Amino acid sequence: MAVGQPIEFFFDFISPYGYYASTRIDELAASHGREVRWRVFFMRGLVQEKLGIDTPIFLLPLKGEYFRQDVPRMARYFEVPYDPVSVLDFNPLPAERAFLWIDERDPAAARQFAKNVYRATFGEARNLSAPEAVAAEGARVGMDAAALLAALGTAALKEKLAAATEAAAARGVWGTPTFVVDGELWWGADRLALIDEWLTRGGW
Amino acid sequence: MAVGQPIEFFFDFISPYGYYASTRIDELAASHGREVRWRVFFMRGLVQEKLGIDTPIFLLPLKGEYFRQDVPRMARYFEVPYDPVSVLDFNPLPAERAFLWIDERDPAAARQFAKNVYRATFGEARNLSAPEAVAAEGARVGMDAAALLAALGTAALKEKLAAATEAAAARGVWGTPTFVVDGELWWGADRLALIDEWLTRGGW
Repeated sequence: MAVGQPIEFFFDFISPYGYYASTRIDELAASHGREVRWRVFFMRGLVQEKLGIDTPIFLLPLKGEYFRQDVPRMARYFEVPYDPVSVLDFNPLPAERAFLWIDERDPAAARQFAKNVYRATFGEARNLSAPEAVAAEGARVGMDAAALLAALGTAALKEKLAAATEAAAARGVWGTPTFVVDGELWWGADRLALIDEWLTRGGW
Repeated sequence: MAVGQPIEFFFDFISPYGYYASTRIDELAASHGREVRWRVFFMRGLVQEKLGIDTPIFLLPLKGEYFRQDVPRMARYFEVPYDPVSVLDFNPLPAERAFLWIDERDPAAARQFAKNVYRATFGEARNLSAPEAVAAEGARVGMDAAALLAALGTAALKEKLAAATEAAAARGVWGTPTFVVDGELWWGADRLALIDEWLTRGGW
């Protein structure tokens, strides 16, 4: 099998569709001999700054209703546990900053951390907004919880997530999950089947 | 094969994804023994009134870029002709009102008219904004062009499209294409494969 470019997976822990994608993307890529680069970003900051969107989608009329139907339906489709925290009570920033901190030290651990955070948030109704809860999740993947907790309060790590978000926007990303495959962007967990077909056919 | 409820297909001629869906939905439904009810609505009016969205998606930063890449890619995926008019120069209202007028007289002709309008708009770069051009399209499906042209200027037909749009919103529709299958809404041409699976499995 020809070796292709890594797939980039842009994600934000606020998105249930990112959760679904997190359970599939590594296996999908591996089946085509591709690696995956996991790229966290802070979607609310991006859409507020770049698109002027302030209202969470679940609070919009009509669209909110639609997604309240679609999100659990897609959990059943992807056959993943679904027991979500209230998105409105969930602050993804500490976990997103933690991902960056862990990723600097051990990318494989960071990936497992991301999968665990997603599963906790949408599959186990465990709200990981608090830095202490995030640090405990870091310990589960082998990190020093006290060092991680200390890092979460630093300006340097906050700026790192802001820079990652800016970098995502510079690549054209505005929603989660977004995949970059052979230079093309794909938005949405429902595009995974198309990405699979794209990789099989070598594009179209 | 058990007889199921008809599938409803909510569409607006402004949407290239509606075009793609228009080339597939009848055959997809028929393969499951289902009929399709074609339901036109005026999306811009709906999203302005219900969601407060004024900016066409193609003019948004980032999102506009994404859809400029995705729309032709999906045309290639669906293997349909792609030579679009400029969406910003296209007024879908006359064709949408004409659809309703034709649908009252001959639903099969209305469906063919809709397919022709979509193909003209996105596959043949023919701008059908003008009532005269719309009336000529009506004649191609057996309608009286003069009578259709006269009807397009009436308040009654304008109100009929407004009512159809209100009815779509009352069903929860906010984007195009939207399908209603067994009481569930599905948004997006990229959900056709999921609808196919839904119908095969009898839901999940």
